[in-house]
Amino acid sequence: MSELELISELRSLLTHPDPRLVLGIGDDAAVVRGRGYAVTSVDTMVDGVHFRSGQLHPETIGHRALAGALSDLAAMGVRCECRGDVQAYLALGLPTGSSEVGLKLVAGAARLADEYGVSIVGGDLTSAPALTVSFTVVGWSDDPGELVRRDGARPGELVGVTGALGAAAAGLALYEGHVPDSALDPALAGALRERHARPRPLLAAGRALVRAGVSAMLDLSDGIASDAATLARASGVRVELDLAHLPLADGVAEVAAALGEQAARFAACGGEDYELCFTAGPASREAIEAALAACPGASAAVTWVGEVLAGDPPGLRFRDAGERSEPLAGYEHSF
Amino acid sequence: MSELELISELRSLLTHPDPRLVLGIGDDAAVVRGRGYAVTSVDTMVDGVHFRSGQLHPETIGHRALAGALSDLAAMGVRCECRGDVQAYLALGLPTGSSEVGLKLVAGAARLADEYGVSIVGGDLTSAPALTVSFTVVGWSDDPGELVRRDGARPGELVGVTGALGAAAAGLALYEGHVPDSALDPALAGALRERHARPRPLLAAGRALVRAGVSAMLDLSDGIASDAATLARASGVRVELDLAHLPLADGVAEVAAALGEQAARFAACGGEDYELCFTAGPASREAIEAALAACPGASAAVTWVGEVLAGDPPGLRFRDAGERSEPLAGYEHSF
Repeated sequence: MSELELISELRSLLTHPDPRLVLGIGDDAAVVRGRGYAVTSVDTMVDGVHFRSGQLHPETIGHRALAGALSDLAAMGVRCECRGDVQAYLALGLPTGSSEVGLKLVAGAARLADEYGVSIVGGDLTSAPALTVSFTVVGWSDDPGELVRRDGARPGELVGVTGALGAAAAGLALYEGHVPDSALDPALAGALRERHARPRPLLAAGRALVRAGVSAMLDLSDGIASDAATLARASGVRVELDLAHLPLADGVAEVAAALGEQAARFAACGGEDYELCFTAGPASREAIEAALAACPGASAAVTWVGEVLAGDPPGLRFRDAGERSEPLAGYEHSF
Repeated sequence: MSELELISELRSLLTHPDPRLVLGIGDDAAVVRGRGYAVTSVDTMVDGVHFRSGQLHPETIGHRALAGALSDLAAMGVRCECRGDVQAYLALGLPTGSSEVGLKLVAGAARLADEYGVSIVGGDLTSAPALTVSFTVVGWSDDPGELVRRDGARPGELVGVTGALGAAAAGLALYEGHVPDSALDPALAGALRERHARPRPLLAAGRALVRAGVSAMLDLSDGIASDAATLARASGVRVELDLAHLPLADGVAEVAAALGEQAARFAACGGEDYELCFTAGPASREAIEAALAACPGASAAVTWVGEVLAGDPPGLRFRDAGERSEPLAGYEHSF
């Protein structure tokens, strides 16, 4: 397949209706009618770094890359309810001879985009030594006061997380063959693999949390041990968490045991759950629980895992860890 | 240097003032106050595909990648006159151990950004097997009717180009060692290398051309033999060009001769000049020449190189070529 044929096929996959789109794929740039404020995030996934193309179907790789980017918008509380709320741009790097992989990848991303009402309206295709998928996603806000940042946590507030932790890392351990699937119920093993392979960006939950009054929020891409420390430093506060309070996903205990690790530590350091971690005053506690309960899906539960304290230097401490827990080195960072 | 230290250093390089920036580097997403319509383009450059890191300084690689992305906005006629007019987002993939390269690359991009009043307000850093630089650039328009597309060329119009062609390809031939610098005056060789290494996005010229009434426009990234065919197909017209009328950059004749190629063909097929190619009715001819003459720089000259004709199938023909000229296969395409 020639490059121009490939682009023609790509375009046919990316015909999302978008009431805000004035000029889409095929020109020097896309033109989108905006609202007051653009909220933009970039997220890149590279074969051998963020996934292995031998482990995941190309459709899944496309899903996963777009989900990772959309998760950043979820963590801001961006609205993604109707067509036109969020646009995505794809920079795709394909190794020689992988046109079919590229088409399937785009089809997988387009399927997730359709499900969330997101439109992929532009991009760029290049040769690359490794499969590289970079999504720029843009949401809109009429009032930046509606968005939540990482730096708003204040002493006296509580720290909450959505859903359950460690599933994506446990799924990765299965994909990598570090733990045999036979260590688990087959359905559970499948669910953990799915959590690694096809994360769900929590856009509705993020929006509900902002409305319910969270003061700071981010998505858990590196693991709460790393991400909560980031939130603490951004806010200039100390965050104290209880390992024993972390909500563990089903099957994480078994995978951690098979690896000889403590389950809560494994979950705290496991990346790519894409759950939301947030802070809020105690007075907002019930409103937050009610708001999340009204959201669909497994992440609708909130668990209160710690507290915000004044303190210098800012950072994270696990109160019930025998020693200071060292976060896993993250291999991906926004800046 | 740890990844977090690298990010901290990157942030310190990217402190552009931007009156429209509400939330910049360091959160899940950047927040920018918009105007009516967002004009967005993505452009990726990969080591070994679009440049060779052994040939170019890291600063130059950063400059070149941002310039390539901004050239797409120039081809739309986007305004880039004041701080806040254009924002850029950088997805940077760094091989292990190349933190210093990454910092220099970002410094080079930041210098070009400062010169054009562009702000780099967000991005993403990952590991990658090859140095990979992807810029998403966003300009704004109050009226999409002010922007020019690729599909507006109509029979009876003229085809023009800015500046002179073939310089970037000639510079690349020098970098690649296909032609010795001794084949040229040393200053000329240096100028050709500079045209390959550090292209200038023609934002002022693009805006002036739109105001003067061009009907279709794109930037010459693959070479006019390929790009004018793209414009013709997008507009559903035939474009006929005269090889003998193409404006050749100084030194291109010597480089082409050293390669045993016809100079005009070499210039027509040489990519990455980032000059602008446009169509306009004959009545706009003088206004366009005057508008470009009022722009600074070597690209301020316009050369009329051909005509737009009705015809099916749409495409490009060189009237004075003995055979149909085949464009070089482009290795990069927007979609």
